[in-house]
Amino acid sequence: MRGAEAMIQTLLQAGVDVCFTNPGTSEMHFVAALDQYPQMRAVLTLFEGVASGAADGYARMLGKPAATLLHLGCGLGNALANLHNARKARSPIINIVGEHATYHVPLNAQLQSDISTVARNVSRWIRTVESVGRISADVAEAFSVSMATPHSIATLIVPADTTWAMDAEVVSIPPLPLPQSADTRRIDEIAQLLKSGARTTLLLGGRALQEPWLSRLAVIAEQTGSSLLAEVFPARMSRGAGIPPVPRLAYFAEMASVQLSGIEHLIRVDCPAPVSFFAYPDKKSELVPECCKVHTLLDEHEAIDTCIAALEQILGCMHQEPMRMVLARPKLPRGKLTAEKVCKAIGALLPEHAIIVDEAQTSGVMLPFYTAASPEHDLLTLTGGAIGQGLPVAVGAAIACPDRPVLALVGDGAAMYTPQALWTMAREHLNITSIIFNNASYSILNVELQRVGASGGQKALDQLRIDAPALDFLQLGRSMGIHSQRVDTAEDLIKALEFCLANPGPHLIEAMVPPALAGIKLRLLPHLLRSLSKIPLPMARFIKQKIAP
Amino acid sequence: MRGAEAMIQTLLQAGVDVCFTNPGTSEMHFVAALDQYPQMRAVLTLFEGVASGAADGYARMLGKPAATLLHLGCGLGNALANLHNARKARSPIINIVGEHATYHVPLNAQLQSDISTVARNVSRWIRTVESVGRISADVAEAFSVSMATPHSIATLIVPADTTWAMDAEVVSIPPLPLPQSADTRRIDEIAQLLKSGARTTLLLGGRALQEPWLSRLAVIAEQTGSSLLAEVFPARMSRGAGIPPVPRLAYFAEMASVQLSGIEHLIRVDCPAPVSFFAYPDKKSELVPECCKVHTLLDEHEAIDTCIAALEQILGCMHQEPMRMVLARPKLPRGKLTAEKVCKAIGALLPEHAIIVDEAQTSGVMLPFYTAASPEHDLLTLTGGAIGQGLPVAVGAAIACPDRPVLALVGDGAAMYTPQALWTMAREHLNITSIIFNNASYSILNVELQRVGASGGQKALDQLRIDAPALDFLQLGRSMGIHSQRVDTAEDLIKALEFCLANPGPHLIEAMVPPALAGIKLRLLPHLLRSLSKIPLPMARFIKQKIAP
Repeated sequence: MRGAEAMIQTLLQAGVDVCFTNPGTSEMHFVAALDQYPQMRAVLTLFEGVASGAADGYARMLGKPAATLLHLGCGLGNALANLHNARKARSPIINIVGEHATYHVPLNAQLQSDISTVARNVSRWIRTVESVGRISADVAEAFSVSMATPHSIATLIVPADTTWAMDAEVVSIPPLPLPQSADTRRIDEIAQLLKSGARTTLLLGGRALQEPWLSRLAVIAEQTGSSLLAEVFPARMSRGAGIPPVPRLAYFAEMASVQLSGIEHLIRVDCPAPVSFFAYPDKKSELVPECCKVHTLLDEHEAIDTCIAALEQILGCMHQEPMRMVLARPKLPRGKLTAEKVCKAIGALLPEHAIIVDEAQTSGVMLPFYTAASPEHDLLTLTGGAIGQGLPVAVGAAIACPDRPVLALVGDGAAMYTPQALWTMAREHLNITSIIFNNASYSILNVELQRVGASGGQKALDQLRIDAPALDFLQLGRSMGIHSQRVDTAEDLIKALEFCLANPGPHLIEAMVPPALAGIKLRLLPHLLRSLSKIPLPMARFIKQKIAP
Repeated sequence: MRGAEAMIQTLLQAGVDVCFTNPGTSEMHFVAALDQYPQMRAVLTLFEGVASGAADGYARMLGKPAATLLHLGCGLGNALANLHNARKARSPIINIVGEHATYHVPLNAQLQSDISTVARNVSRWIRTVESVGRISADVAEAFSVSMATPHSIATLIVPADTTWAMDAEVVSIPPLPLPQSADTRRIDEIAQLLKSGARTTLLLGGRALQEPWLSRLAVIAEQTGSSLLAEVFPARMSRGAGIPPVPRLAYFAEMASVQLSGIEHLIRVDCPAPVSFFAYPDKKSELVPECCKVHTLLDEHEAIDTCIAALEQILGCMHQEPMRMVLARPKLPRGKLTAEKVCKAIGALLPEHAIIVDEAQTSGVMLPFYTAASPEHDLLTLTGGAIGQGLPVAVGAAIACPDRPVLALVGDGAAMYTPQALWTMAREHLNITSIIFNNASYSILNVELQRVGASGGQKALDQLRIDAPALDFLQLGRSMGIHSQRVDTAEDLIKALEFCLANPGPHLIEAMVPPALAGIKLRLLPHLLRSLSKIPLPMARFIKQKIAP
């Protein structure tokens, strides 16, 4: 059989049955082979950053890779930013990058580039297929690499002649390598520390923020009087009613420092020690207070099941139930729309088992608060800081979980990096409601300009404004075949949102809002955090109860 | 002064006074410093591929670099595809890529990436600023590298703390290195060859397709009875009335082979020997016939002025005038719109000194033919094959040449890679008319699918269709504040085009056309080429005359 056919067969054998594509001439044999394999779903995107972001969202929800199909080094280049986010999310992805035929490479044709160099920064593993005889084994190895612990990105560069040659054979997929076990002595030390009565916090990231691990870690925290905290940008986090609540570390170091103050021991569980997102003049980049000691329960390359089981064993808290959130929704907002009211409305109307993709930057600041006791949901966040992730990740999540409604909350600036995702949502009839916060500004940068101690005049501030011309997301959505609405009151937002949730998507809601943190004084950031925990809202009724999940 | 201020001062001193930006937090001090330097124009883009493509277009028109301002490795990643095109166009560009503060880098924060790896494929030179004391010298060196012969891309990675530190000084710009002279013995050999009476063609690329070199090479060809041919995708080519006409090598190898057949000697002038754009099964990638010998008059690293002067000297053809095109426009088309009629209307209405950016793929096949004797214009093409170049390059060309109308002809598929360019056109009030050919298809790939010998079923063909949902460029243009019109008859197109040309832009025209080469038989491609040269159209009146330029 042809090399291209062997590739698809090998992928299917490994359970990889979705491919996010933006093919060109060098990938035509892969494309032509698709008809023979109805099990392989090929999802066309108009821009490679949509393909890579979708593969990320898909992997976050299913814990297995999709393939991307990219056209040479330039296609991979366009995919890089969202592959960076996927790398930080530890999403398994198999990039299939077409390359010129082996004998064509030395001729330095127009599209010739050094693909493996482009792939380096985001890929754990890079391989160029040497001959059609190796093509199936290379795909199998890419799969194994991507699924090893931690999950990662494997990039397979595929010269066109290895896809059209006829003498390919399909190898079987080798068993996945087992992750390393966490050191038992280290687990024992953590257990003693937890029992010691010192002020201890478990900082959860990665796998630890998903069930069943989250609940079991919550039991451990309750049992030992320690507290839980989540990393600032989780790849995927279980939240809402029925789930143990875990506050997230704040993006702003000014707020995160408040959250971390007074902790004597910080125990990392599948995440690094927290550092500031950016550096700022005369401020420390490390967020952990000097008097706080950092410990490791679980590293990313280690097995989580045996690690938590061992700790439960020592602490004697197997098969116990943690406190879980009880359903409590905020009231519906009213009046002129603000970003906060959008978050409140989402908290009030969130359907069961929703997936929330949050790339709303300043506009989403209040989202965790208002959705804390909404129905159970998964939250997917901007793991790598490369904006343009929200809409594509929503595409992948919706394809991974067709029975769950997806809400993508995206800032206007972020939405404009990968607006092409809207088209794929329409093409694939995905159940996604995209809410674009139109505040006509790179709002976060106005805060950052202050934080780096720079004072900008009009010319500098103009670099942070995207209001001239005003972006019109209503027309943008419609230009790509998406049912779109624009709202500027809470009442209209609620009506629009209710319609979207009642009629499976795709939909787009353009929320006209003022910048959320406009004019905020930096010294007030910590107070904002403190006051949040005292707001006399329905939130106060969030009584944690021991209930069955 | 601050490092950021020294950077801008050094750039200005080198004559670099335009910066295409998409900044983030790590670039805020550069942004804040802009207000002190009114001479530095900062052009905000919503996506980095627009910034890099604009820098390419700017450099092609002015022969000097603009700077880009990009946010870390991910921002650079988004810029890569158009940097690839710029590299192939040999455009000088200075990338300024923000990096975390030096002490923040080892902390592996969310946005940390290996920027120099990402930069490698497109950059001749990569430097990370080590300290604020080096920042001005590094900028000066980036400029020198970019302007050496051949022009190239220099990437300067700038840790945030080197921009905010206060003890920077501004160095002076060293004189630019002189290009190497072409070997005189080689020039002498070429002269003898040209005089020998053998069937000889000068293949012109790069600088050789611009004035005054193009005219002087045309004289040489006339004098010696040799012919001229242009490389397939020139960065910038002078064309139209008053310019010596040079046919371009065809994209399709099936057609290029016809053009090259019978040539005994092919003399490269600032371009490589022609190879097929892609490889195809059982077809040769080299386009030069085996019986044809390839010679080099000028390589990309060599000085063009002394080389051509030396050749003129030997041939005794200094200060002569070549045959030049005489103005002759095609008739206005009528009836239902086709891509060919769009090209014809452009030929009929093209204003003086226009800049045409051609990324129209199949829809633009007839453009060179219909504009051959239109008023003098520059043609900028897709040098590197990474689509998404047209709209951004138009932005840069319009900023470089505010007195010249820019026409950007872009296929629908290509337009969707970098649609954000439309917003910058509106923000900067650029005189660009973008014509989007909406044929609802990756039309070229339908031809390529045949050419690689693959037979696609419905699933494969669906990967080449972008008609469901239909893209609506009217609304897309309006969503970004661009005056937009949709036309589906030649009469309406003419009206729209006349309006756009009479009222400086930006404008967008969505041309609803059927795919241009739909259903074409591959074996007919060579015949298409031959018949083109015999079409009894006004073109036949293109009598070359000796006229003053």
